[in-house]
Amino acid sequence: MIPHAKPAVGVIGLGAMGLGVARSLLRAGYPTLGCDLRPEVLRSFEREGGIPCPAPGAMGSRCQVVITLVVNEAQTDEALFGPGGAVPALTPGSVVVSSATVSPGYSRDLGRRLSEHSLLMIDAPVSGGAVRAAEGKLTLMTSGPAEAYAKCEEVLGSIAARVYHLGDQHGMGSQVKMINQLLAGVHIAAMSEALALGIREGVDLKVLYEVITHSAGNSWMFENRAPHVIEGDYTSLSAVDIFVKDLGLVLDTARSSKFPLPLSSAAHQMFMMASAAGHGREDDSAVIKIFPGIKLPSSVG
Amino acid sequence: MIPHAKPAVGVIGLGAMGLGVARSLLRAGYPTLGCDLRPEVLRSFEREGGIPCPAPGAMGSRCQVVITLVVNEAQTDEALFGPGGAVPALTPGSVVVSSATVSPGYSRDLGRRLSEHSLLMIDAPVSGGAVRAAEGKLTLMTSGPAEAYAKCEEVLGSIAARVYHLGDQHGMGSQVKMINQLLAGVHIAAMSEALALGIREGVDLKVLYEVITHSAGNSWMFENRAPHVIEGDYTSLSAVDIFVKDLGLVLDTARSSKFPLPLSSAAHQMFMMASAAGHGREDDSAVIKIFPGIKLPSSVG
Repeated sequence: MIPHAKPAVGVIGLGAMGLGVARSLLRAGYPTLGCDLRPEVLRSFEREGGIPCPAPGAMGSRCQVVITLVVNEAQTDEALFGPGGAVPALTPGSVVVSSATVSPGYSRDLGRRLSEHSLLMIDAPVSGGAVRAAEGKLTLMTSGPAEAYAKCEEVLGSIAARVYHLGDQHGMGSQVKMINQLLAGVHIAAMSEALALGIREGVDLKVLYEVITHSAGNSWMFENRAPHVIEGDYTSLSAVDIFVKDLGLVLDTARSSKFPLPLSSAAHQMFMMASAAGHGREDDSAVIKIFPGIKLPSSVG
Repeated sequence: MIPHAKPAVGVIGLGAMGLGVARSLLRAGYPTLGCDLRPEVLRSFEREGGIPCPAPGAMGSRCQVVITLVVNEAQTDEALFGPGGAVPALTPGSVVVSSATVSPGYSRDLGRRLSEHSLLMIDAPVSGGAVRAAEGKLTLMTSGPAEAYAKCEEVLGSIAARVYHLGDQHGMGSQVKMINQLLAGVHIAAMSEALALGIREGVDLKVLYEVITHSAGNSWMFENRAPHVIEGDYTSLSAVDIFVKDLGLVLDTARSSKFPLPLSSAAHQMFMMASAAGHGREDDSAVIKIFPGIKLPSSVG
C-alpha cells in the first residue's frame, strides 16, 4: 500500500518524547503513523509528513512495529487493550515497543499478556529528554526475546544513539530505567535544595552554577535543570508530576521487596509537596518552590 | 637562604590533598615547606625534595604564603593559633590560604582574627579529589581582598586548573564549597541507594554503571564512586566521616538561618548510620553498608 522501501512504524503518544521519536523515524525514511488524543497535534504531525491515526487500533493493520510512548502504565494499557486499542488490530508476530516508564512488574506482565495475543514485545524505556528525542539520540534501556529484536532492531537504532540490551526477559530494561529515575529524581530535588540554600545565604546563582558544573557536586540534572530556576522559566519540559509518578514506582517496587529507600522517600515527599501546592504541571525544577523564606529569580520575559 | 628564584610556600597538612598540592608546588619550582603530625609522611616528603617542618611555627619565618589543608575547623585553628602554630611566627603581610572545608561563618571569623595579627587571608576551599590535587588540577573556590590575591595568585594558579574569584569577603568561597558538599554528599548517598536497590532487584551492577553513566541519572559522584562499590574496594580516598562533618557544616549553617534541608538531612543520617556502625574511616562509598538484606560485591584482591 505504502510506496516506501521501509516498513511503516506506529508511534502512540505524540508528547515531547513521542513526537521526537516520530520525527526521527520520518527522517530515517520510515512511513510513520502517529496517534494522539489531541487533534491539533495530529494535524501538525500530518503537515510534517506523518500519517495521523485517530486511534491506536487504526494503525494496527498498517504496521508491524508499534512504539508506545505515553505517560504511564494506565495509558499504556488503554492504548493497547482499551476501546480502539492497538492489540486486536495488530497482525500476529508484530512487535510492541513499550517505552513509557513503568514498573518492572508491569512490564513483565505486559509481555505475558501480549504473548497471549501472539504479539512480541520489547521492554524499552528511554532516557535523554525531549531535545535528544528530537535528534534521534535517545538512550534506550531494552530487554526482550531475540525474535522481537530481530523485527525492530533497525527501528530502535534510528531513534537512539545507544540501545542497551539488558537481557531476554521483559522488565530488565524497566529495572534499569527505574534506578535511573531514582537518581534523576533525587538529583533534581538536590539541585533545588542546593540553589535554595544558596539564595538563602546570598550566593550569586550564576557564579554558583559555573563553579558547581566544574566541581565534584555536578550532576546531569544539576547542569540541565538549574538554568530553569536561575532564569525563572518553569515551562514544563518534564513535569513535577512525572517524578511524583516515577519516584512512586521506585518506592512501590522497593516496598514490594521490603527494601528501605530513605533518600528517594524524602525526594518523593518534596515532589508531592510541590504538586499539592499546585505546581504539578510545571517543570520538575519547580520543586524548589516548596522552600519557604526565599525569593526565587523571576523570568525576564 | 634558599637558592631559588621563586619564594618558598608552606603547606600545613600533608594528607592526600595537601601532599598533592605540595607536589604541584615542587613541580612548579617553589621551595616547598611541609608540616604534618606523622613523622613518616615528613620523611617521605623530604625524599621528594620538600622541606620538612616539625611544626607550623617553624615555617612562619621562612615563607610568606602558607596553605592550610587540614581536615576541619579545629585543626585549622590548632595549626594557626595552637602551640607551635604558624601565626606568631609569620611576617606581617603574609597570606594564609585557608583550604580546609569550614563553615562560611568560621572563615569570616578567621579572616578577622588573622587581620588582628596583620596577616592577610584567602578563603580557598578546594574541590577535585586526591588525583586532581596530585596533578595540580584542583578547582579553588576563593574569596578575599585584592591585596591578598596579589601576593599568592601565582601560587594558586600552580595548584589549580581553575581558580574562581567569588568576592572580596571571606566566607564567600566557603559558601560555594558548602553548597558543593551538599550536592556531593547527597549524590554519594543517592549512588549507594541506587546500587543497593539494584542489588536487591538482581540487576547486573556493571551493566547498570554503563547505562547510568550515559543517562540522565549520572552525577560526578556516581561516575567516580560507584566503581568502589562494584569492585568491593573501600580503601579510603575520602572517608565516610568527612561527610558526617561536611553535611554537618551544611546543616549547622542552614539551622543558623533557620532553613530546612530535607534531603541533606536524610543523607547526613545515612552517613551517621555508617559511621556509628564502624565504617567512619572507610571510603565514603561505604555508606552503602547501611542497607540491610543485600550482599555487596566483595573485592577480588
